[in-house]
Order: sequence, then structure tokens, then C-alpha cells
Amino acid sequence: MKQEQAQIEELFDRLFPICRSISGPGVRETLRILQDYIPLTVEGVPTGEQVHDWVIPKEWRIREAWIKDEFGNEIVNFRDSNLHVLNYSTAVDRKLTLEEMRPHLYSLPHLPGAIPYVTSYYTPRWGFCLPHSQLEKLNQGHYHVYIDSEHIEGELNYGHLILPGENKTEILITSYICHPSMANNELSGPIVAAFLYNRIKKWKSRRFTYRFVLAPETIGSIAYLSRYGAEMKKYLHAGFVLTCMGGQGSLSYKNSRHEIADVDLLAQHMFKEGRIEGRIRHFNPISGSDERQYGSPGYSLPVGQMTRMLDPGYEGYHNSLDTKEKMGIESLLRSVDEMEDILRALELDGFYINNNPYGEVKLDRHGLYPDMNHTPRIGHSDNTTIDQRTRLNAILMMLNYTDGQHTMRNIADRCRVNILDLAPIIELLLEKKLIAGPYTEKRGLFD
Amino acid sequence: MKQEQAQIEELFDRLFPICRSISGPGVRETLRILQDYIPLTVEGVPTGEQVHDWVIPKEWRIREAWIKDEFGNEIVNFRDSNLHVLNYSTAVDRKLTLEEMRPHLYSLPHLPGAIPYVTSYYTPRWGFCLPHSQLEKLNQGHYHVYIDSEHIEGELNYGHLILPGENKTEILITSYICHPSMANNELSGPIVAAFLYNRIKKWKSRRFTYRFVLAPETIGSIAYLSRYGAEMKKYLHAGFVLTCMGGQGSLSYKNSRHEIADVDLLAQHMFKEGRIEGRIRHFNPISGSDERQYGSPGYSLPVGQMTRMLDPGYEGYHNSLDTKEKMGIESLLRSVDEMEDILRALELDGFYINNNPYGEVKLDRHGLYPDMNHTPRIGHSDNTTIDQRTRLNAILMMLNYTDGQHTMRNIADRCRVNILDLAPIIELLLEKKLIAGPYTEKRGLFD
Amino acid sequence: MKQEQAQIEELFDRLFPICRSISGPGVRETLRILQDYIPLTVEGVPTGEQVHDWVIPKEWRIREAWIKDEFGNEIVNFRDSNLHVLNYSTAVDRKLTLEEMRPHLYSLPHLPGAIPYVTSYYTPRWGFCLPHSQLEKLNQGHYHVYIDSEHIEGELNYGHLILPGENKTEILITSYICHPSMANNELSGPIVAAFLYNRIKKWKSRRFTYRFVLAPETIGSIAYLSRYGAEMKKYLHAGFVLTCMGGQGSLSYKNSRHEIADVDLLAQHMFKEGRIEGRIRHFNPISGSDERQYGSPGYSLPVGQMTRMLDPGYEGYHNSLDTKEKMGIESLLRSVDEMEDILRALELDGFYINNNPYGEVKLDRHGLYPDMNHTPRIGHSDNTTIDQRTRLNAILMMLNYTDGQHTMRNIADRCRVNILDLAPIIELLLEKKLIAGPYTEKRGLFD
Repeated sequence: MKQEQAQIEELFDRLFPICRSISGPGVRETLRILQDYIPLTVEGVPTGEQVHDWVIPKEWRIREAWIKDEFGNEIVNFRDSNLHVLNYSTAVDRKLTLEEMRPHLYSLPHLPGAIPYVTSYYTPRWGFCLPHSQLEKLNQGHYHVYIDSEHIEGELNYGHLILPGENKTEILITSYICHPSMANNELSGPIVAAFLYNRIKKWKSRRFTYRFVLAPETIGSIAYLSRYGAEMKKYLHAGFVLTCMGGQGSLSYKNSRHEIADVDLLAQHMFKEGRIEGRIRHFNPISGSDERQYGSPGYSLPVGQMTRMLDPGYEGYHNSLDTKEKMGIESLLRSVDEMEDILRALELDGFYINNNPYGEVKLDRHGLYPDMNHTPRIGHSDNTTIDQRTRLNAILMMLNYTDGQHTMRNIADRCRVNILDLAPIIELLLEKKLIAGPYTEKRGLFD
Repeated sequence: MKQEQAQIEELFDRLFPICRSISGPGVRETLRILQDYIPLTVEGVPTGEQVHDWVIPKEWRIREAWIKDEFGNEIVNFRDSNLHVLNYSTAVDRKLTLEEMRPHLYSLPHLPGAIPYVTSYYTPRWGFCLPHSQLEKLNQGHYHVYIDSEHIEGELNYGHLILPGENKTEILITSYICHPSMANNELSGPIVAAFLYNRIKKWKSRRFTYRFVLAPETIGSIAYLSRYGAEMKKYLHAGFVLTCMGGQGSLSYKNSRHEIADVDLLAQHMFKEGRIEGRIRHFNPISGSDERQYGSPGYSLPVGQMTRMLDPGYEGYHNSLDTKEKMGIESLLRSVDEMEDILRALELDGFYINNNPYGEVKLDRHGLYPDMNHTPRIGHSDNTTIDQRTRLNAILMMLNYTDGQHTMRNIADRCRVNILDLAPIIELLLEKKLIAGPYTEKRGLFD
Repeated sequence: MKQEQAQIEELFDRLFPICRSISGPGVRETLRILQDYIPLTVEGVPTGEQVHDWVIPKEWRIREAWIKDEFGNEIVNFRDSNLHVLNYSTAVDRKLTLEEMRPHLYSLPHLPGAIPYVTSYYTPRWGFCLPHSQLEKLNQGHYHVYIDSEHIEGELNYGHLILPGENKTEILITSYICHPSMANNELSGPIVAAFLYNRIKKWKSRRFTYRFVLAPETIGSIAYLSRYGAEMKKYLHAGFVLTCMGGQGSLSYKNSRHEIADVDLLAQHMFKEGRIEGRIRHFNPISGSDERQYGSPGYSLPVGQMTRMLDPGYEGYHNSLDTKEKMGIESLLRSVDEMEDILRALELDGFYINNNPYGEVKLDRHGLYPDMNHTPRIGHSDNTTIDQRTRLNAILMMLNYTDGQHTMRNIADRCRVNILDLAPIIELLLEKKLIAGPYTEKRGLFD
């Protein structure tokens, strides 16, 4: 655990300084480092390629960027923070008055100490971002603005990986890799995805195939869908866009577009049955992350969004206050733990079949029942006995409702327990061949 | 507007004095006057024709009706109010004592100044209606009762009109024309229908075909259905029985028999989203108007009933207190306005298709989006910006849910706005060929 | 009524002393006595036969059982109460110290005066049951324990009966006959079933076929299902397991596994509309009676459980306090009455067809309506008139919703009356050929 947390921090520290954008060397370097933790295949879509309603833009390369005053004093320098330059900025090398430069400077009046994160991908613009407190102190006079950047024919990159399971039905784990030096609203997602991969890989068995996708937000997932969307439409059972997985709060899940897909109902179950603290939000196509693309009407995939520290709910949203300290490395570990629980629950969920569906199963014959009906009144302090009763009740519930029409989550709901609490009983009943499953689709008892 | 209100009053004043019944010259004269405002085709069903479980009765003609006391003083005279005679009364010319005459006199003890409206269509009877205060003052003695009426082989008349639209799917607007001199519970319906016709006629385009039907209540709509019901069953999408459209209150809509037909859900939407003040009632086949016929089990058409001043909820119900003043001419204009809004909303409602359903539409490419992500914190007093945000959100909602499975009303509900608020955006997206529709039936994205 | 109650008591007194078990002479004697009241056919399933996941055990025969102290004093004797011996006990004839005997003695510390009812069907054991107060007073020393019992190749018996109706669709009435001398939690069920049979037999007509089954609990119903389950799966429309039908409380119905089968919704309707006091419980496969077998996933029959005095809710549960006095003979008569009402309601429920579905039926033509529209304001004290109005409304409701899609229970719900209140109107409309039905399945108006 301690070791895993140290590894998480190491990965974080390697990724943080990189100047990412929707394309370019920063994205490739990010993917390369991630490959030390998760064996992603990296692919590229060339500039100019049409991906659905979008066109892959040119790659952005940036080498240097600064403002100097007329005395040659550096006001801001890209070296200090890659947030200082408008992301995807065109090149500039001019001398201007403060008034002329002013429209190209971005700051946050309500957070005077923060450098904002601003982008202009689809309209050519140059600009700098700086703390409002600094902006307000700028003297009249002339300034030299210098950005050494270029936009070249290149490609847009993403990394992905298929971890095969017992069947082809897929679970998607995805996040984005396009924000520059920000912690919660950038690195938390890919890092949790990478460490989650390492957990899943070690499971004894895997019912589902897991698809990991790390791509630039919006244009990246649209490009990915234009290549793999038809395949995902065929196989995808559930998916999670991971974003802002740090912070102190509890999880918050935004439903897939379906609102009642299995993944949505499972998330609801996990939070309701108290295994994991969290809450559910409705889907909307307005704000959020790539669930908007996976949930566009042509795909309408069952992909929700999981977050801990909600988008505009924290000060560091899209600015330099989004630091490792605010995010918290231990929060990422907690996110890995909780996401693993959710995925394990998803593995258990599904439709099961009782192999002896006529009349009750004779439990004692299968070593599942006390052999005499004498139950003297039991005090509620006798916890062992109560647990035995709960266990027996759960067995009876499971044998009655494993009819191919109720998922294990439905059964857990009837038992008022979390589906993970049923795991040992499911294993036992499967082992004794009393039930068969899980199946992803409803089925009749004798299909 | 002023002019329209004056026209409404003019029509009202021409129609009010006529002695209507379920058949006869009064109905024909009413239809003839209405034809000056709406080009109805008038048809007749002959006496004795079987219409479903009913038979068209004889036509009633009345010329004179009075009661005189033994001194020749007129007690009541049909000339003063056509409510004084029992509607459809047989002829009589007899001298009777007060006791003998008493069972033939109708009054309202709880409204001693009102002349009640009483009918006896299917059992031959003679009778007079008078204020209870007058009845109580009648002296003992002899009276001469005289009604010069006859029941002849004739026909039952109704007027109807088809205003064609882009497709054959129909909207029904109907009311009744069988009550004598009453304002709210007679003339408000046909008048609102006539002026609504003139509004719809002027629309730039019309998706639906509009069917206007003005017929005597119950027997008239049953006769109409026996002729046109099969056609309506094929084409009717929504309908409104207009009744009691005057008064100060807000609208009240009685659901069609389906309770969840599109017309019902639209009415609910219009009232919920505050565009129009109103409330929803459940369907019942017990009280109300011709929605009971359109909603009989064999037809089960999606026809609701719209009213403003509810039936037994006002003093003037079925008596001489139902006057122009109580009703209010300006209330009819308000009803025309609100019904026009409802019909415009119905035109917009329906299923739409996003023509670029894979991934988000790239809004800036279509001139629909700010081209940079920098949104400085916006104070809620800055209404313009908020509206822009609402508009952008609505566009994103519309592009996501125009999947052939959600109606525009569903989308408006998700946006928490009225469907009419979306009208300019719908027009814009249609114009830019980003969406197609509206379709009346659900469809797949590529049908 | 008085006579019926006397007959009930007579039957009770004949059945009470018998030492029943899951098989053996006690069960056969019980069935033979019941045959004097209900002409059951008795069948047997031989020892060793596999019935689903179970095997029919040997028959138990017991002749004598006692404990004597070292002075020859009888401590307990089977003659005094057949609860004194562990039900299905193996034979024993040994002299033991108190310590050696102690593990074979069962008592209820929280009810020191009661002899518990304990069984050990599937593990060979010997044992005695006695009041805890008596157990505590036993002196140290030697005891002679003697049980003259044997387990032989025999059969398991049940009794059943088919009472044919107009169609083959079946209603099941069942209870169990395996508990020894207990009143509420044994005899109340079979006795109510027997007297219910005699009520149903006398009905003028019977839409459904009634199946009566009296069998040992669990193993008996599983054996019965293994023979007749396939047939029941084909024909069964509704069923009731009767258990604990005595006591002062109101009825309590445990839903079938479907939770929304017709029988469940009807029970809900009967209780909601206040005809019968009662409440609804959810289904569970954990506690209860043979509804667990009928509701096993392979059968999943629409069989609920009806009870009055709930299982562990009374002191007499599974012990000698379960006496005739605690149960109350008059409670059984009340149960027969209420169950008869429920079955009559079930007979009336179903889908009906309006034979004149186009437009309203002309009620006066069929003698169903006042022939004039004058309804002077009616005081609510005038009950007759109110009832006429309620009746007229019910007729209109029934004619509108007898469309083959709504059951009569649905219509009664809309009328806010109990379905039995509609019985005279249903009869009238059927007689006038205005409606046809009841049908057990939904149908179109012209099927």
C-alpha cells in the first residue's frame, strides 16, 4: 500500500512538468511515461483527417515564451509555468504598449494569485496568462512579447490497451491527457487508470474484457470513436470517464446518457448500500468530460463519469492552484481502491440461473442449513447468530431470484446488503453447482 | 387586437339571441352566421337515422310560448328569454290550476333570480322555466299555458372544415352549438374556434391538418363520428373540445382518455413551464362535454377538453345568469391567444433527428459557439451572458436528444424551458441542416 | 351461521388430538376426517421417491414415549401431549443421568410454561420437549427415557380435489396438515379450506375451477408440485396458502412472487376499498409457508399467503400455547366469510367488452338513465339521490372502460368503490347484453 502510494507519487512527479495540449510532443511524452506503468499502444491520427464533424488540427510545438518590460525585466516566462502561455498560442515577437498588450493577457480577478489555464484551439490567437495581482501592477510603458511556437502537419495521439477477459463484453476505463501542469483536473485520471489496470491484471479471473483509453479530451475521444466506436458499440457493457479523482470528498458519479444502464444502477447500488460513499448526478451533454462524446446520440454508449472533486466546485479549477498538495496523492490511492471495488461489483453483477429451480433447494443436503427447526429466541446482541441468519436469508433470496431475470445487484438490494457482501456466497453456490452465471443478458431458466 | 376583440363581440351579439336546440332552425342560423367568420361546410343527418346506439330525433320548431293568469296577465313569455320554455317542449294549449301546472314549472331555489336551462329531448314533455322568486309569488287560480311548437321530420346539422397542412395528420378543434341564449357555456366555444381558425390560417407554415367541427353536443358529435370517426381514427393526432372559454380564471385541461397522449403531455408541459397558467384534470366519462364521445372506447381518440370557467363551478351554469358580462369578451381573446400558443407548441413538438449524431457537433464550425474556453466568473446580474449560456446549453441538449426517441417537449423539459422558447433555435438548427424534423412518430437515427 | 360455527368446532375437536407429522398414520387419519367435510382424493408418494431436490423420507410411527425418574415417577408422557416427543424422533430405551439426558430435552426459557414444538426430520435424533419450569426443577439422578417409535418404508400423503368451473383456469386453495396438536398454526388452515369449499360449491355459477390441496408443509407441497406442477403452471390464475387463520386481528396477505399478479392486486384492492380489513406484505422466500414452493423460480406460480395471526407475532407460535381458545372458533368463521368475499371478487374481476363501444350508450333506451337533464342542487344528506348518482357514474365508468384492457378491479378503483359493490351493475349490464365478459386475458374490442 505504502509502496503503491510511492509509485503513484513517482508517476505524478514525472508527468506534472510536461506542457501538454491536444497534440504535440507533450502528449507523446506523457504517453511514453505512462507506458512504464500500463502497456498502452500509442496511435496517431494525422492532421487534416476528418473525424466525424471535426478535423484533426495541426500539432502545436512551443519552445519559448516570455514578456519583458522596456528595461528587459522578465514579467512572465513559460519556463516558470507552462500555464503562462495561452495553450495552442500562435507565435509572436512584438513590442507593444500595455494597452495594446492588454487584450492578450488573461487573469482571474476573483483569484488574484492564480495563473489561469486558457486555450484557443480553433481560432488563431496569441496570449499570456498571469496572476491578476501581477497584471494589476504592470506599469504603463512598452513590453516585448515573444512566443516561439509553430503549428505543423503532425498527428493527434492517444494510447489504448485491451486487457482480455473470459468474454468479449467490454468495460471502458478512460481519461484525458491534454491539460498542462495541473494535478486534479489532469493527472488524477490517467494515474488512477494506470494503477487500476495493475489491480485488475492481478485478479484471479476476469469476466469482462477491459479497454483502457487515454486521449486528449473531446477531439481525442471523437478521433478514437471514429476509429473504434463501431467496435465499442458492439461490445461495450459499461464505462467510466475518470476525471478529478483527487481531493477529500466522496465520489460522485454522473450517469451515462441512458440513466438506467447497468453501470448507472450499479453505481447507485454501491453508494446506496454504503460500501462506498458517493452520490449520483444526472447525465447532461453540457458540462463534464468525454462522457459527452461516448454519449453522443449516434453512439449512446453506457459510459458514466466518475469524479471526486467536482469541476467548478473547487478553486483550482483550470488554474495554477490545482496542485499536488490540493489533490493529495493518498486520494488517488483511495480512488484506485474504490474504483476496484466498483469493478469487482460489476464483475459479480449479472443474471444467474438456479440449477434446481423447482421447489426449494434442500439446503442441508448441500451443507447449507442447520438440520433441526429448533431456534430458541435469540438475543440481538448475539451477533454470530444474526450473521448466520442473514447469511441463510441471503442464500434463500439468491436461490429464489437466480431465475435469469434478476441481476445479483437486484438480489443484493432485496437482501439490503452490498453485492460485494454476497461474493463468498456466490462463489460457494457456483462451486456447488447450485447456480450458474453470471450472464450479461437476461435469459430463461432453460436457455 | 382591439379590432379582433370588437369582431368577437360583434359575432357574440349576433349569435346570443338565437334559440338553439339539438336541431332546428336555430342551429342552422347559428352555423350560417359563423360562416361569415369560418367557411364551414354544413351537413345534415336526417331524422330517424341510426347513429351508433342513438337515433336522430325530430327537429324542434317553436314559434310562441307563454303563461297567462286568469286575468290575461302574461306570467312568462318566450319572447323575453328563450330559456323560459323547456327546450324541445311539446306543444300545449290548456287551462290549468296552479297545482296542475306546478309539475311543469322549473326553477332554481338556490338561485331565486335565475331562469334555469332545462331540456327534455328524449321524453315528450311540456314545460316552462322561470325564476324561483317569481314562481313562489304565483297566486292560486287558473292559468293558460300555451306553447306553439312542433316536432317534424327534418335533420340534425353540424358545420365542419378541413384546413390542410403539410401532412395528413390532424388536429381537431371542436365545440357545441345547441344551447340557447347562454354566453360562457355556449358561445365562448364556437367563437374561440372561429377566431383560432383565422389565426392558424395566417401562419407561415402548418405541419398538421386542422379539422374544425361545430355540432350539437352529444348527439351531434355522435352523428359526426358515425360519419367521420373512421377517418379521424386514422389521422387524428390531438384534439381539443372547447367549452366555457370565458371568465377570469386560468385554463383547465381535462386529459384525453389516454391520459398520456401527446396532447395531454403537451398541455401539462405548457402549464408546468409557466408559459400559460393552467391545470390538468384527469379524464372521466361522467361529466364534461364531447370528449366523452371522442373518448368512447371504440374511438378512444386523443381528444382533451379545454375550459376556463369550470362547469358547475360558477353560478351561471345552465341558467340565465350566464351572460356576456359574466363571461367577458376580453376573456375570449385571451383564450384565442393561449390556444394559439398551445397549437404552435404542438406544431413544434415531435421527434427530430440530429444529422451529425457521432460525437459532439463542432459548434464553432456552424457559427454556434464562442471559440475560446476562457469564461471568467460571471455575476448572476449579467443577464445577457446568462441567456447566452442558457442558449448554448439548449443547443447542446437539443443536439444530444434529437435522436428520434425524445420529443422536443421532452428536450424542453430537460432544459427547464417552455418549448416555445426553443422555437428560434429549432428554426436555426433546421436551417443549418443540423437537425431534421419534426416527425410525429419515433424513429431510428437512420430511418 | 350458528350451525356452521358448531360444525367448525366439531371438526376442530376431532382433529386436534391427532399426532401429525410429515408422514404416517396421523396424516392419513387427519385426511380421513376431513373427507367427511370435503371429498378429497388421498394420494401417496412412496418413501425413497425423488421429488425435485428432495427425497420422500420414511414414515414415522410412534406408540409410546415417556421419561421416568429413578423412583419410577413419570416426568413426561406422550399421552398427555403429543408435543412432548421430538417430532420424528428415533426410538430410545436407556437409563441416563440428568447431565446425559439434558442435551435431548427442549424447552423455551422465555415461555417457561409452554411445551415447544420441535422436529428433526432429516437428522436422526431422539428427544423430549417440556416446559422450562419443569425442566429446571428436575433433580440430579438417573432417568429412564423410553420412546417406542419406528421409521418404515411407507408413503407421504396428501389430499386434493378439483371443483370444476365454467373454464379450466384454476384457483388454488391450500394449507398444511403436518403439525401435531396446535390450533392456529395447524388446524385453522385446513378447516377454513374445507368450509370455504362448501361455500363455493353452493354458488349459482363458478367461472374458475377450484383446486384444493391439503398436504404436509414443504416436502408435501414439493411432492405435490412434482406430480401436478406442470398442470398448475398451465392453468393456475391465482392461489392462496391459508395459514394461521384464527385470532382477533385483521387479514394479512403476502404477495405472490410476482408481487403484481392479479391475485396480488385484487387483495390490495379488497383491503384498500375497505371491504375487508387487511394489509399487504411483500413476497420473500425466507419465512412463511408453502408459497415459497409455489413461488420457487421454476414454477413461479401466482400464489400468495393469507393469514390472520402472523407467525412469530404471537406467543403460541410452535408450542402448546397454540390452543383453541387463543385461536377462537368464531375467527375461523370470519376467515371463511372474508375468503369467500375475496374469491367472489376474483370471479368478478377480469376484462370485459362493451358491445356498443362507439359513442356513449344511450342509457335511457336501455332503462338506465333519468330522461331529463334537470338536476336541482342536491343536499348531501339526501342519500338516495347520491347513491343514484354514484350508480349512474359507475355505469358510465364501466361502459367506457370495458374495452378489454381494464379489469373490473381497475374500473372499481376509478369509481373508488369495492368491486363487490359493482356486482349488481355488472349483472344488469351483462343481462342487457351491453357488456360481455369476464375474460381472464386482455383482448381487443372485436376479438
